[in-house]
Amino acid sequence: MKDLNGMENQDLMQKIVSLAKRRGFVFQGSEIYGGLAGTYDYGPLGTLLKNNIKDSWLKKFVHSRTDMYLLDAAILMNQNVWKATGHVDHFADPLVVCEKCNFRERFDMLILTETKEEGMVLLPSNPKEQKEMLDGLNIKCPKGGSHVWSTPRQFNMMLATKVGASEDSAATSYLRPETAQGIFVNFKNVVDSMNPKIPFGIAQIGKAFRNEITPRDFIFRLRELEQMEIEYFVKPSEWEKNFEYWRDEILEWMESVGLDMKKIHNVEIGDGDRAHYSARTIDFEFEYPFGQKELYGLAYRGDYDLSRHADASGQKLQYVDQGEEGSEVYVPHVIEPSFGLDRTVLALLVSSYKEDNMGDEPRVYLSLDPKIAPYKIAVSPLLKNKEDLVEKSKNLFGILKSEFKNVVFDDNGNIGKRYRRQDEIGTPFCVVVDFESLEDESVTVRHRDTGEQERLKIEDLISYFKEKLA
Amino acid sequence: MKDLNGMENQDLMQKIVSLAKRRGFVFQGSEIYGGLAGTYDYGPLGTLLKNNIKDSWLKKFVHSRTDMYLLDAAILMNQNVWKATGHVDHFADPLVVCEKCNFRERFDMLILTETKEEGMVLLPSNPKEQKEMLDGLNIKCPKGGSHVWSTPRQFNMMLATKVGASEDSAATSYLRPETAQGIFVNFKNVVDSMNPKIPFGIAQIGKAFRNEITPRDFIFRLRELEQMEIEYFVKPSEWEKNFEYWRDEILEWMESVGLDMKKIHNVEIGDGDRAHYSARTIDFEFEYPFGQKELYGLAYRGDYDLSRHADASGQKLQYVDQGEEGSEVYVPHVIEPSFGLDRTVLALLVSSYKEDNMGDEPRVYLSLDPKIAPYKIAVSPLLKNKEDLVEKSKNLFGILKSEFKNVVFDDNGNIGKRYRRQDEIGTPFCVVVDFESLEDESVTVRHRDTGEQERLKIEDLISYFKEKLA
Repeated sequence: MKDLNGMENQDLMQKIVSLAKRRGFVFQGSEIYGGLAGTYDYGPLGTLLKNNIKDSWLKKFVHSRTDMYLLDAAILMNQNVWKATGHVDHFADPLVVCEKCNFRERFDMLILTETKEEGMVLLPSNPKEQKEMLDGLNIKCPKGGSHVWSTPRQFNMMLATKVGASEDSAATSYLRPETAQGIFVNFKNVVDSMNPKIPFGIAQIGKAFRNEITPRDFIFRLRELEQMEIEYFVKPSEWEKNFEYWRDEILEWMESVGLDMKKIHNVEIGDGDRAHYSARTIDFEFEYPFGQKELYGLAYRGDYDLSRHADASGQKLQYVDQGEEGSEVYVPHVIEPSFGLDRTVLALLVSSYKEDNMGDEPRVYLSLDPKIAPYKIAVSPLLKNKEDLVEKSKNLFGILKSEFKNVVFDDNGNIGKRYRRQDEIGTPFCVVVDFESLEDESVTVRHRDTGEQERLKIEDLISYFKEKLA
Repeated sequence: MKDLNGMENQDLMQKIVSLAKRRGFVFQGSEIYGGLAGTYDYGPLGTLLKNNIKDSWLKKFVHSRTDMYLLDAAILMNQNVWKATGHVDHFADPLVVCEKCNFRERFDMLILTETKEEGMVLLPSNPKEQKEMLDGLNIKCPKGGSHVWSTPRQFNMMLATKVGASEDSAATSYLRPETAQGIFVNFKNVVDSMNPKIPFGIAQIGKAFRNEITPRDFIFRLRELEQMEIEYFVKPSEWEKNFEYWRDEILEWMESVGLDMKKIHNVEIGDGDRAHYSARTIDFEFEYPFGQKELYGLAYRGDYDLSRHADASGQKLQYVDQGEEGSEVYVPHVIEPSFGLDRTVLALLVSSYKEDNMGDEPRVYLSLDPKIAPYKIAVSPLLKNKEDLVEKSKNLFGILKSEFKNVVFDDNGNIGKRYRRQDEIGTPFCVVVDFESLEDESVTVRHRDTGEQERLKIEDLISYFKEKLA
């Protein structure tokens, strides 16, 4: 597989992981202790990037709207939440263990890795048939080379902990495997306190945890992840038009943050593969270097969640619609746009990673959208040993930094090296103070993607960048 | 105890908890399932408030500086991190169990509750002496009334979970009890990727978890909490001036977000009470309605953390200082300003909760600083059944909302009720479109704290609010 840039996909992935570590985007979790599988730590630039993505999401889906309410529910929830939703009984993957070396893997992953070149495979859900399939394909353990596998068993993916000083089972709690349920459990609180008019949504950004049997693909399949989710509550008869509306909204946002739309695929999930309560689901898949995988989802969930929680908790979870023809009481239906934040970071790195030749030298750059880039502007003196250039550039740096956050001062190495270094982390603009600046109050503004330079008056810079960074 | 407002402190606390729930600031966690002790969910207004506090903190301590690097480390860390820090062995509270009814409480809480009117008590740390003290004071179980207590035992406050598909002890992981260690563990990664010049800091906002024996006092003592922490790395000889500097910075920020500085006390922690590695620690305590308790902390931690992690991980955690007189290699010393986010929310609610009489009626309002208030501006038509007023006010709402986030449209009830409702959630400005507005393009701007109204031209509103909300 070759991508548009001509790079082997495996190479591309290695380059991205390496750049992410070297330049302070993403580090392995607990790295100095040998790591903890499925966890990653965001470094200075990765945290800025992630915060910019969150801000863009909040701006579009919360702050610019009048029908969206924010929520920040706890990660630890009463265990009965997860009994009601079925997670305690059914949120599981089929686990297979190599009888020789104890290597553990998901049944489906083992089959798909083995058969990846041979097209789609129908996987059985019954453990006995799964075992027969493993044996029939004579699948080899990738670690020890044996061919003897355990019968697959359902392995629950929720991380459990004991909360409180008592040791009994009442103390068991789970780290939420999704942020969505925090919203449903607070539906009544939000309706009672905010009196929203239907349709309305509740939006939440937060961590979720899944005890993946085999976390993989960098920040794609994690044990600790971050989600941005919306539950949008609608009149049951109006779900279809709301579903269409949200599909368009998701696509619009994707494009606005700079995801490569040529790599995005809207996949309608067929009857057999949807959750039983969902009459329609779309997965938005992205062409990652390791394959086309789910990035976001849009699901019509009907009244499934509210009804389950109403039954299990004994609370009325419904809405009193004060329509023009009198009031009507019903359980709203739900459209759920769901966004993986870590997957967004990775998809943006994949979308923006570029190599080209500029001047005589090859270079790497991230063509990140200016509003998403960790640093917006780098300010430099042309030479770092000329006091008047340094002073003027520091002065300009102070002015720009007070107006725009994430402006950086860079006087390290020569100007060519600085450009390369800023290119590699996606800084869209470099401002250079040179000898001419001392004469006429002008500076060079250098553009990341094209390398083009233009000459601007210092007094015009703020309005110039306000427009560019809007 | 009476506070300045003349309210009994217990009343004040009840009023704040009730307002927080009724108006969408803070709900009990998993409330419809009977809750989960020590967890709370932030509702729409509470999330806005919390986000505004974070933004203000980031602006002052990260984005307006040139020496601060952000980090977002995982909650789950390799268990060896917590062995190295001593948390696995020593992060514990003395647990006492009532032999009759199984009621559990912290030894110190039990003694302090019993003896609160009798001044300071010296508490023994030895379990045998603790037991003798319980028996000597003949302390009664607050639940069952018995006087028979177990010998206190050390109860570890870390929440444990098993990560991965294997059941062995290698899989044990802990939900971090503090965000600080994520910073120390990433010290080398940040230094290698960002090349910071000393002194510099690493800042992080995130969740932490503590299995408190008895969570209490609303969002004060939680099992799931959010922290904002900085580890500031300095040349060892310069710790004292940096410590003083950070004390002033913390106080400045506190005042800027609107904490009642008359309720703040800087408490120097004495030799016997500081951690053994700290030569100086200040607790910033706040007069909560339930007593004067820790809000923030400032600790000089020397090279304790970096040295411990260096020993345990086998990595070199040091800094190469390229000073003017040649390079010098050393382990930096650390100044740690630490901020509890939930405690900030509660302290701000306590600081801003006010009752007075306005006109003929008593009212409640939150005198929140405009930059912290969840909603900045409420826009209303004077009458909701006059179409031209409604249209003009909706138009104005759209203009203001596109410029300032968190503008709300409110046409519910009469204008007096709307003012009361916005006062209660701390909205600093109400803009009202009336019949005069249709004639002369002017509106009334009503101020929350004083109830004063002024008349402004619509065209001047944006620059007016830009100044007020800066």
